[in-house]
Amino acid sequence: MIVGIDHLGVAVESLETALRFWQGALGMTPEHTEAVGEQGVGTVLLPANGVRIELLEPTGPDTPVGKFLARRGPGLHHVCLLVDDLDAALRTLTASGLRLIDEVPRPGVEGSRIAFLHPAAGAGVLVELKETVRR
Amino acid sequence: MIVGIDHLGVAVESLETALRFWQGALGMTPEHTEAVGEQGVGTVLLPANGVRIELLEPTGPDTPVGKFLARRGPGLHHVCLLVDDLDAALRTLTASGLRLIDEVPRPGVEGSRIAFLHPAAGAGVLVELKETVRR
Repeated sequence: MIVGIDHLGVAVESLETALRFWQGALGMTPEHTEAVGEQGVGTVLLPANGVRIELLEPTGPDTPVGKFLARRGPGLHHVCLLVDDLDAALRTLTASGLRLIDEVPRPGVEGSRIAFLHPAAGAGVLVELKETVRR
Repeated sequence: MIVGIDHLGVAVESLETALRFWQGALGMTPEHTEAVGEQGVGTVLLPANGVRIELLEPTGPDTPVGKFLARRGPGLHHVCLLVDDLDAALRTLTASGLRLIDEVPRPGVEGSRIAFLHPAAGAGVLVELKETVRR
């Protein structure tokens, strides 16, 4: 089912402050910045050998990432895994009895289709599935 | 400084239970299993396009991962980034005033040399640096 790792989501209080570490200290180069209104975050992506670190700054406290920050503080938030066929993957996982946050795909960054599984399904890990672009 | 992402560490209560999700439900294939006595963990690595998910089960409660589980529960634990020259990287980061857990490299899995930065340095993220194998 899984064909790769797309990115690693990191919840941050401030993109500017976080970039002092990821870009300033570690020398990584931001490739893409996008606000995803539906998810209530501003994002910056930092690539490294095909995988990206995705910094996520919430637009307010009543967003999923805002609530995560209030509960757990800044840090690793989710991992995004690539699948070829997201609809088929969600059907298979539902049939396995796994708990999903998104039972149907929704829009992600860069025009992608994504769905989140519940951390209870992922042994404590919030997993995002992202469909590879159909060519 | 950073030439890639090596793996994503995940703290688990039980490798067997976690593998039901990562291998059983998601279909990922374990490539390597190793106990790292010095770090007090049993590990399983699951590769995906060059990056690995590293499952970490502590050998007891008084280990770094055991304490993490008691404090935060299972979930994403650290990200391991690759550097060409670990000694030079640690010198640069120390000169930047960043807080390190390991001021000198220590042994990691598969005969590697690693060092952890403090989460306070990484805007909340526990970052492991791993030196690429010198050829």
